[in-house]
Amino acid sequence: MANCIFTLIGGMAGNWKVLSMVSVAGAPLEKVPRIAVLEGDCPLPMTGAQWRLRGVTSYERYVTRAERNLLTAVQPGLGRAEATCAALIPIRKSARWWELPQDERRALFETRSGHIRMGLEYLPAVARRLYHSRDLGEPFDFLTWFEYAPSHEMAFDELVAKLRRSEEWNYVEREIDIRLVRDDGAPTAPLV
Amino acid sequence: MANCIFTLIGGMAGNWKVLSMVSVAGAPLEKVPRIAVLEGDCPLPMTGAQWRLRGVTSYERYVTRAERNLLTAVQPGLGRAEATCAALIPIRKSARWWELPQDERRALFETRSGHIRMGLEYLPAVARRLYHSRDLGEPFDFLTWFEYAPSHEMAFDELVAKLRRSEEWNYVEREIDIRLVRDDGAPTAPLV
Repeated sequence: MANCIFTLIGGMAGNWKVLSMVSVAGAPLEKVPRIAVLEGDCPLPMTGAQWRLRGVTSYERYVTRAERNLLTAVQPGLGRAEATCAALIPIRKSARWWELPQDERRALFETRSGHIRMGLEYLPAVARRLYHSRDLGEPFDFLTWFEYAPSHEMAFDELVAKLRRSEEWNYVEREIDIRLVRDDGAPTAPLV
Repeated sequence: MANCIFTLIGGMAGNWKVLSMVSVAGAPLEKVPRIAVLEGDCPLPMTGAQWRLRGVTSYERYVTRAERNLLTAVQPGLGRAEATCAALIPIRKSARWWELPQDERRALFETRSGHIRMGLEYLPAVARRLYHSRDLGEPFDFLTWFEYAPSHEMAFDELVAKLRRSEEWNYVEREIDIRLVRDDGAPTAPLV
């Protein structure tokens, strides 16, 4: 996917209604009723918004060719009609993680934590997009975004729980779990 | 090294005097007499400047632990008194490069092109810093910066020539080779 910047605005407007916001680790994020996902580098609206998070759809940092082939065979795109549930999980990893060389981060991420192979078990139920934020100087390193049908919510919860028990998660120092439901009849007026 | 954003301004001011600017591949960059390297995300000055390039000192994308150990044992820092020569080589790689999975980029970068092992042969003569620009939506993916003593200029030229002959360079679609000399008595007034 090409490098595109996106802005996620937490506030009164947007097509995603917030059902819950749980601070899993580190400082919380101010609670908001809605989230808007906007293409481009957008400013925080003057009214009706509490926070803004930005991220870039960028190149893959760990996936091998073999893993890519497995993933592309089964992973769905965003915006499926039945996938009315979403999760936004912003994550920041520790300085200790980023100081590791590439081979050790890869070993932690996949060989020891099975991040990719665990995720594969939940495809095509869960669609996924990763926004990279670290190089933008944002408060989180990644904004992880997932979409799934209501009938797959328990499966998604199971995936998230497995990842949180993995060795990789020892390096997660801030994580907010935000659950959303699509609501296309949302008010958009405050977003000015 | 921590994530820090830097701004490089091409114009009338700055401690680095431009000796030459050669467009190796792709569109040229406007010729300027001086370059200023500033910490932070700085705006393009209203007067006396032609262009601004930004980049972030970020985590390592390809280096293994073994390579890191070899590098840290011999690599010098920036700002050595004798290293009065510098080169700024902004580089953009092709979409084909960024679409490759991590294992294939790593294989091209090191196994087949020897980027790290070639660079090691020129240490500690050449100090190096890499600024990452791709996720910032900049015109280049990287700003590569080198500092060396005048007596090591030929060695540096040899290193650059070897890299340009490597398979990795088939994926370089824009490259400007800017050579500089330190000049601390530079005028800084126009940088407002």
